[in-house]
Amino acid sequence: MDLLSIDSLTDEQVRAILDRADHFFGANPTADSTTLNGKLVFNLFYENSTRTLMSFATASHRLGASVITMPVEQSSVKKGESLDDTAKTLNAMSPDLLVIRHGNNGAPAAVAEIMDAPVINAGDGTNEHPTQALLDAATIRRRLGRIEDLKIAICGDIKHSRVARSNSRLLSRLGAEVRLAGPAELMPDGAPHLSVDEAIEGADVVMMLRVQRERLEADLGDAPGEFLRRYGLTSERLARAAPGAVVMHPGPMNRGVEIDGAIADDPDRSLITMQVAMGVAVRMACLELLLA
Amino acid sequence: MDLLSIDSLTDEQVRAILDRADHFFGANPTADSTTLNGKLVFNLFYENSTRTLMSFATASHRLGASVITMPVEQSSVKKGESLDDTAKTLNAMSPDLLVIRHGNNGAPAAVAEIMDAPVINAGDGTNEHPTQALLDAATIRRRLGRIEDLKIAICGDIKHSRVARSNSRLLSRLGAEVRLAGPAELMPDGAPHLSVDEAIEGADVVMMLRVQRERLEADLGDAPGEFLRRYGLTSERLARAAPGAVVMHPGPMNRGVEIDGAIADDPDRSLITMQVAMGVAVRMACLELLLA
Amino acid sequence: MDLLSIDSLTDEQVRAILDRADHFFGANPTADSTTLNGKLVFNLFYENSTRTLMSFATASHRLGASVITMPVEQSSVKKGESLDDTAKTLNAMSPDLLVIRHGNNGAPAAVAEIMDAPVINAGDGTNEHPTQALLDAATIRRRLGRIEDLKIAICGDIKHSRVARSNSRLLSRLGAEVRLAGPAELMPDGAPHLSVDEAIEGADVVMMLRVQRERLEADLGDAPGEFLRRYGLTSERLARAAPGAVVMHPGPMNRGVEIDGAIADDPDRSLITMQVAMGVAVRMACLELLLA
Repeated sequence: MDLLSIDSLTDEQVRAILDRADHFFGANPTADSTTLNGKLVFNLFYENSTRTLMSFATASHRLGASVITMPVEQSSVKKGESLDDTAKTLNAMSPDLLVIRHGNNGAPAAVAEIMDAPVINAGDGTNEHPTQALLDAATIRRRLGRIEDLKIAICGDIKHSRVARSNSRLLSRLGAEVRLAGPAELMPDGAPHLSVDEAIEGADVVMMLRVQRERLEADLGDAPGEFLRRYGLTSERLARAAPGAVVMHPGPMNRGVEIDGAIADDPDRSLITMQVAMGVAVRMACLELLLA
Repeated sequence: MDLLSIDSLTDEQVRAILDRADHFFGANPTADSTTLNGKLVFNLFYENSTRTLMSFATASHRLGASVITMPVEQSSVKKGESLDDTAKTLNAMSPDLLVIRHGNNGAPAAVAEIMDAPVINAGDGTNEHPTQALLDAATIRRRLGRIEDLKIAICGDIKHSRVARSNSRLLSRLGAEVRLAGPAELMPDGAPHLSVDEAIEGADVVMMLRVQRERLEADLGDAPGEFLRRYGLTSERLARAAPGAVVMHPGPMNRGVEIDGAIADDPDRSLITMQVAMGVAVRMACLELLLA
Repeated sequence: MDLLSIDSLTDEQVRAILDRADHFFGANPTADSTTLNGKLVFNLFYENSTRTLMSFATASHRLGASVITMPVEQSSVKKGESLDDTAKTLNAMSPDLLVIRHGNNGAPAAVAEIMDAPVINAGDGTNEHPTQALLDAATIRRRLGRIEDLKIAICGDIKHSRVARSNSRLLSRLGAEVRLAGPAELMPDGAPHLSVDEAIEGADVVMMLRVQRERLEADLGDAPGEFLRRYGLTSERLARAAPGAVVMHPGPMNRGVEIDGAIADDPDRSLITMQVAMGVAVRMACLELLLA
């Protein structure tokens, strides 16, 4: 079994992961576990990452598994080896599980075709990032008690965001009303265009995405604060949300661009560090599901 | 004891490594082992590598040893520290074993002079790559039942290849008839010049080496497929080999340059992924021999 | 409790670390220990390092702890994430301890404000490098039997050296007479200017610091050996020291610049590799103090 996309999970598997992650989140995170002792996880990150790579490594450690991170920058990729050949090589070394992040949509699925061991997609291009969606769902559920019937606004660069894609699939499936919003240029072609103000109106959860400001340069010019004013999460904008609405961000944040730093740091509103902690718990649950 | 070159191994040690690797290859690769629990291996790779670095790390893990990989790119090497001084520093930290790959011939031997712990040469310049030769021998022996009296063609950039050098030493010693062939410019000075066609004629094993096409640029121009046509392994050329001849490549491959991709993927002929799997097994055998 | 600077340690803690390091130094370094089994150490090195990073990783291993090294070069730092946000992210993953090296003075203290786990400063800008001072003190004490009343010359780029700063604080506190010397341009503003010859006169310990020759380029021109002749440790200069004086260097060395290579290699005089070995022992002692 692989974890490549939200749709590859059954309802029962989603529920099992969320429940197990909730348990790990509540438990003493530094307690020893030997569930996966002797297991070997390969980390294969073709795109930069701090939190996801460290999160998977930490999750593996907490369960007793060992991790080998392939130094992609120094690897045979530089010598022109194809991804298929790299996968065949790694498969022949018989790891117990492979975690892969790659810039091309579908690369993890192609690798999973080759690998005998389970493969986890840690983000592929603009396609999917299923463990991020699972950790976001687990965070919302733990904080607000449910996901069903919640109004969830996802705002920013929807077009290029694998986080938006996986989240909207999972959260819709769990019964939430998902609203996608952002600058017109950053919405998927043909998608209904909602303004950020409209999406946030009455929302229970406001999830802001990282933007690459350069994508709007022609539009925004050099005016500092212009993105935040037009599309970002300010306290004025957050006032439109439901009472007690919570704020999320997958990180890394551009403070003062897509989100006002004061909101990110507001302990009553922001779930941003809780998302990171839940990230380790969700990845422990996924590793256990695929390996134990 | 160090493992620096093929000649540094006695016949008995070669036999012990091949036998033990064959055992590890056949065993469940994910079975726990605690033979080397508590042992600390330093990995010191001054040249890019995926398979060799991952292979040694995987082998160490399988036996329960811990690995610390020195980040050479960020290291004191950048501050002008000599290799001798780096070796003295690492030796003072008392690792149990050091694996080194280096661009200069003889660098591992110089480091071994300084280290109290055993040193394994994971490839030095154009000199030797003894664990590659051992894994190739173990692969041939397991697949064809013997090495003695086999005709083994090694084709490509013989002049710059440490793989060719270690393999021809080891395989000759084990009783094979080794034939080295390649473009005239890529043969060692003074070596008898055999064409690739001549070398493959009646061969039981055809081992193709990675080429750097740039080395023949003046000769080949920009014509695509020209190297493959003149010097590479095509199905026409392979038809000259003995019936049931097998194909090997140390990787990473340039498909369509030194080898036709279809041959590399032919399960009846190609031992390329078996070589990778045997690579882990041979390194386990070497670590055990030097450490246990 | 954090280990951020020499002044953050009580006298009792200094004594405990030195005693415990002395024990670890004398013990079989490859003996298994399980004191810190299951503990997770994050290594966060924003500046290049071989010996310090490897030393902490080795020390962690010797006590049974696991280490995850954040790949700073590939990290969110590159995406403009602030150090505070990186610290909040890492803290949410609940490591048991964080080791940080950073180019900015005070960065480890800022990170320690955020982290729940203990933080060790592995060098910050031109400020402090407390574990280096502790290992130097432990080395001197083991070799010369005491620190009190010793005359210790620290020579080189005093102005930019965190090693000089931490060492002069610790060694003075332990009762030594510390003399700082170097080229006028490389002395802290307003510090009494002692020549290298004066500092070494009658000294029991001569500690040479790494120099960046470029900082004196206008002064020295291109004349090879000019730095060594004017400010470095030559055998003529060492003859001015006390009988039996020992020589130290935190590494990596510029042989022929701040120190004559023959002196560095003199087993009767040089404690340079002993410093490296004691470095592992001191870091074991620090990890144990903060974690066990």
